[in-house]
Amino acid sequence: MTEITDRLHQQFTYLNHLVPFKKAHSFTPWLDNLADKRQRKICASLEDAIARSGLKDGMTISFHHAFREGDQVINMVVACLAKLGFHGLTLASSSLMTCNDALIEHIQSGVIRCIYTSGVRGKLADAISNGLMEEPVQIHSHGGRVKLLQEGELNIDVAFLGVPSCDEYGNANGTHGHACCGSLGYAMVDARYAHQVILLTEQLVDYPNLPASIIQDQVDWIVPVEQVGDPAKISVGAARVTSNPRELMIARSAADVIEFSGFFKNGFSIQTGSGAASTACTRFMAERMQRQNIVAKFALGGITGSIVDLHEQGLIETLLDTQCFDRKAAASLGQDPTHVEISTNVYANPAAKAASCDQLDIVILSALEIDLDFNVNVLTGSDGVMRGASGGHCDVAAAANLTIIVAPLLRTRIPTVVKNVTTRVTPGESVDVLVTDHGIAVNPARAEIKQRLLEAHLPVMSIEQLYAKAIELTGEPQPIEFTDRIVGVVRYRDGSVIDVVRQVKASI
Amino acid sequence: MTEITDRLHQQFTYLNHLVPFKKAHSFTPWLDNLADKRQRKICASLEDAIARSGLKDGMTISFHHAFREGDQVINMVVACLAKLGFHGLTLASSSLMTCNDALIEHIQSGVIRCIYTSGVRGKLADAISNGLMEEPVQIHSHGGRVKLLQEGELNIDVAFLGVPSCDEYGNANGTHGHACCGSLGYAMVDARYAHQVILLTEQLVDYPNLPASIIQDQVDWIVPVEQVGDPAKISVGAARVTSNPRELMIARSAADVIEFSGFFKNGFSIQTGSGAASTACTRFMAERMQRQNIVAKFALGGITGSIVDLHEQGLIETLLDTQCFDRKAAASLGQDPTHVEISTNVYANPAAKAASCDQLDIVILSALEIDLDFNVNVLTGSDGVMRGASGGHCDVAAAANLTIIVAPLLRTRIPTVVKNVTTRVTPGESVDVLVTDHGIAVNPARAEIKQRLLEAHLPVMSIEQLYAKAIELTGEPQPIEFTDRIVGVVRYRDGSVIDVVRQVKASI
Repeated sequence: MTEITDRLHQQFTYLNHLVPFKKAHSFTPWLDNLADKRQRKICASLEDAIARSGLKDGMTISFHHAFREGDQVINMVVACLAKLGFHGLTLASSSLMTCNDALIEHIQSGVIRCIYTSGVRGKLADAISNGLMEEPVQIHSHGGRVKLLQEGELNIDVAFLGVPSCDEYGNANGTHGHACCGSLGYAMVDARYAHQVILLTEQLVDYPNLPASIIQDQVDWIVPVEQVGDPAKISVGAARVTSNPRELMIARSAADVIEFSGFFKNGFSIQTGSGAASTACTRFMAERMQRQNIVAKFALGGITGSIVDLHEQGLIETLLDTQCFDRKAAASLGQDPTHVEISTNVYANPAAKAASCDQLDIVILSALEIDLDFNVNVLTGSDGVMRGASGGHCDVAAAANLTIIVAPLLRTRIPTVVKNVTTRVTPGESVDVLVTDHGIAVNPARAEIKQRLLEAHLPVMSIEQLYAKAIELTGEPQPIEFTDRIVGVVRYRDGSVIDVVRQVKASI
Repeated sequence: MTEITDRLHQQFTYLNHLVPFKKAHSFTPWLDNLADKRQRKICASLEDAIARSGLKDGMTISFHHAFREGDQVINMVVACLAKLGFHGLTLASSSLMTCNDALIEHIQSGVIRCIYTSGVRGKLADAISNGLMEEPVQIHSHGGRVKLLQEGELNIDVAFLGVPSCDEYGNANGTHGHACCGSLGYAMVDARYAHQVILLTEQLVDYPNLPASIIQDQVDWIVPVEQVGDPAKISVGAARVTSNPRELMIARSAADVIEFSGFFKNGFSIQTGSGAASTACTRFMAERMQRQNIVAKFALGGITGSIVDLHEQGLIETLLDTQCFDRKAAASLGQDPTHVEISTNVYANPAAKAASCDQLDIVILSALEIDLDFNVNVLTGSDGVMRGASGGHCDVAAAANLTIIVAPLLRTRIPTVVKNVTTRVTPGESVDVLVTDHGIAVNPARAEIKQRLLEAHLPVMSIEQLYAKAIELTGEPQPIEFTDRIVGVVRYRDGSVIDVVRQVKASI
C-alpha cells in the first residue's frame, strides 16, 4: 500500500495528507468484537459515564427541563459531581424549577460557579436574588439559548439528558416508556451542540428505538438509571387548567380580541403560553372557530391538552411542539403524525436559518408586570426576587403578527400594570395588546388594531387608564429596595443585555 | 441601556463582551416586514440563488443522487455555473451516473477542477479513465463521504439539493409531490454540513411541509424549478428485478447460505445491495422465514420494492432507509411509520457516534471482480475503465457479521473471480462468503461458517477452485494495459487510500 501512496504523492503533491490503508478495522476497533459492536456506549454507572466523558473542573454541563417540576436528573447529576469532587462548573439548563432547591448547597460549596438558564424559581431563586452566587445568573430566552450555543458563548462540554427510553446506540424519544415527557425539543439542541452527550434512561429497549428525537449519531454514553422524572409533575406550577372566574373572564376577553383583531382568518397560526388564562383562552376560541368555520394551520411552542383538544376537533391542522405541558399533549405527540416535535432552534432561535415563530400570527402570553411602555416582566416578583422564566416570551412576542398579553390588573392587591417594570424581559415594542380583567389596552403603535377592537365594542382604554385604575384600588406601591450588586443578567433573544437583576436588600 | 451594561462591565470585567439591547428587531430585520418574514429565502432564479449563496471560483459544490439516472439537478446547475463563468470548482456529488455525461464539457472548459464521488459511469467515466482530468477523481464510500465532511477534507461551500416539494422556509421531504424519490438520506448530510444550502424544488407547498427530512433551519435559499428529476428512472441500471435464470440461481444459493450460516435467527438484521441477484435473494428468503417463523428486526440501507414486500408481509419489522431504489420503496416510506428515513451518517459513517451498519447481521453485496484474497472490485470493469461505484460496499462489509458476495463466475466470457482485482474497493478481510453460479467459497478466516455450510451439503469449494474453473472455461485473461498516471484515488471508509485507478492505454 505504501508504494501506491508514494506514487500518488509524487504525482500530486497536494495529496500528501492521504495515508495508506492498513486494516479494515484500524479506525473502528470495536468492530473486532461482537459485544463492543453493540455495547460500547453503555456505562455501568453515572460515575463511569462522567469519567468516560472527560468532564473536568471549570467545564460546562447542560440539562433539559422537559420534566419541569418532575425532573430528577439535574439534582442527581450535580450531587454525583459534588461527590466526585468537581469544582467551578457552569450549569446550563434550559430552565430551573422549584424542584432544584438542592443546587443551593452545590453552589455554596463551589461545585457550580455559573448558571445559564431561562428561569429560576423557589428557594434557589430566593437565594440567588439574595446574593448566593459570585457570578450573576445569565437569563436567556429559549430561542436565545440556541444562539448562545451557536456562537459559542455557551459551549457545552457534557450534556446530561434524561429520557424515558433509548436503545443501545442512543436513539431516544420522550413518547415511549414509563416516564413520557413528550417533546424533547430542548434536549435536541443540546444533543446537537454538546461535545459529549450522556443519556440517562429509565429503559434500555431493543434497537432500533423509533422515532428517534435524539439520534444515535449524537450520543456518546448511555446510563440506565432508576428514574429520570415524574411525568405527573410536568403540569405542576406553570401549566394548569383554571376554574378561577377572573382568569376565565380574561381568557374570554382575549378570545374577543383575537376574534376582532383582523388576524382571525382561516389558516391562521397561534401560540398560547403556559399561563392559566392563555391556556383557558384556547377553549373560548374553539366556539368561535366552529361558528365561523375557521381552521388554524398550526399551533406552536409548548403544547397543552387544551390545544390538543382543538387539534382533535379538527380546528388546528398541525401542532409544532417544542415542549409538552401535560400528559395529554405527550400522549398525542406519541401517536398523531400531525403532532410534530421541533427543536428550540426550529422554534425560535433568531439566528437559525428559519424559526417557526416568524410564521406566527397570534400569540397569547402572560406577564408578572407590564408597564406604561408595554415592557413586560416575567422574571421577578413584586418583591424584586426572581420567581419566573424568560421562556419563549420575547422570542414569540418579537416574531408574531399579534402579541397579546393576558394578566389580572392586580395580584393579591399588587398592581400588574406599573409605571416601570422591575425587570424588562420583553420590550414594549413587541407587545400589541394587553387584556386584563378591567379592560383592554392597545399599544399606540398599533392604531389599526385599536380601531378594530373599538368597532367591535370591546372595552378598550389606554394603558395609563388601566394603571390609574390599579393605583386607585391599591395605592402607589412602595419601591423595592435593591443593593447595587448585579445578581442576574437578562439577555434579549439576540444575546444583548436588556436588563439586570439586582440583589434585594435583606429578606432571607 | 448603556448605563446598565457599563455597570455590569464594572462589576464583572469578564462580561465585557456583552452589549446593550437596541431594538427588538436589530438582529432580525426581516421581522419588520410581513413579506420578508415569509419570503426571504425564495429566489427568483437559480442565478439569483447562486449570487445570494456567495459561491466563488475554486469553491466546493455538492449534490445528492437520490434520483439516480433520473437526476436533472446536477447537469442543470453546472450548466448554469458555466454560463455564469465559474471556474475551478470542486464537485462533490454523493454519486454520478450515466446521465451526467454533460459534465465532460464543463471539466474540459475548467468549470469543474476536481471531483469527489462514490461512483462514476458512462461516457464521463470513460473520459476520466482516459485522462480527462488533471486531478484524480476521489472515490469514497457512502459512510466515508460523511467522515471526509466531518473532518473537513471535503468542505461544502454550497449544496444544491433537488427536492420534490418544500415550503417557504425549506422544510422538505422526498415523499410528497410529483417527483418522489423517497429517502433523502444523502441530502440530509449535505444539509447538515454545507455552509450554504440551496433547495431546488418542483413544488412550493404551504407551511409547514411535514415530515421534514431536510429541516428549515438547514436551508438558506429556495429556487422553484420545472423539474428536479424523473422518478421513473431511479430504478434504471443498478437496481432492477431480474428474471435471468443464472442470477436467480445465485440468489437461491445465497438464500441457502443465509439459512445455514448460523445468523438466520429470529430478530436478525439484513441489507441487500442494489444488484439483481442480491435483490432477488430477498424473495427466496421470504419462504424460508415463513417456514421457520423467523422475523427480521430491520433491513438497512438502500431499500427495494422486494424488501418492502417482506416488510409488508410482516417478515421485517423496520426498514432503515438511506435511499429508495424504486417507486414502491418511495411510496412505502411516505406512508408507513415503521419505514424510516436515515442519513448516511447514521447509516454507515465509521466516525459517527454510532452507525447502523454496525448492528447488521447479514449483508448481500455484488462484485465486478473478486480475487483469491477475497478483495472486491466494484469500480472498474475488465477493461480497467471506471463503470461502477464504491457505494456502501466497504462500509457494510466491514461492519456486518456475515458479508456475502454474489456474482456470476463469468460475465460475457470474462472471469469475475481473478488472481488480483484490478481495483481494490473492499478488503478481503471484510468478505466472508462468495456465492457464484459454479459454487460457494468461504473466506478461510471463517472456518465455522464453512463448517456449517458443509454440514448443510452446500457446494462449498475453495476460491482457488472457483478461479481454476473460470480459467478453464475462458483461458487466462490478458492483463489490462495502464499508463503510469493516476486518474482515480480509491478511499477506504476511514479515508485512507486503498487503491488507485490508472489511466488506460488508448481506447477512445
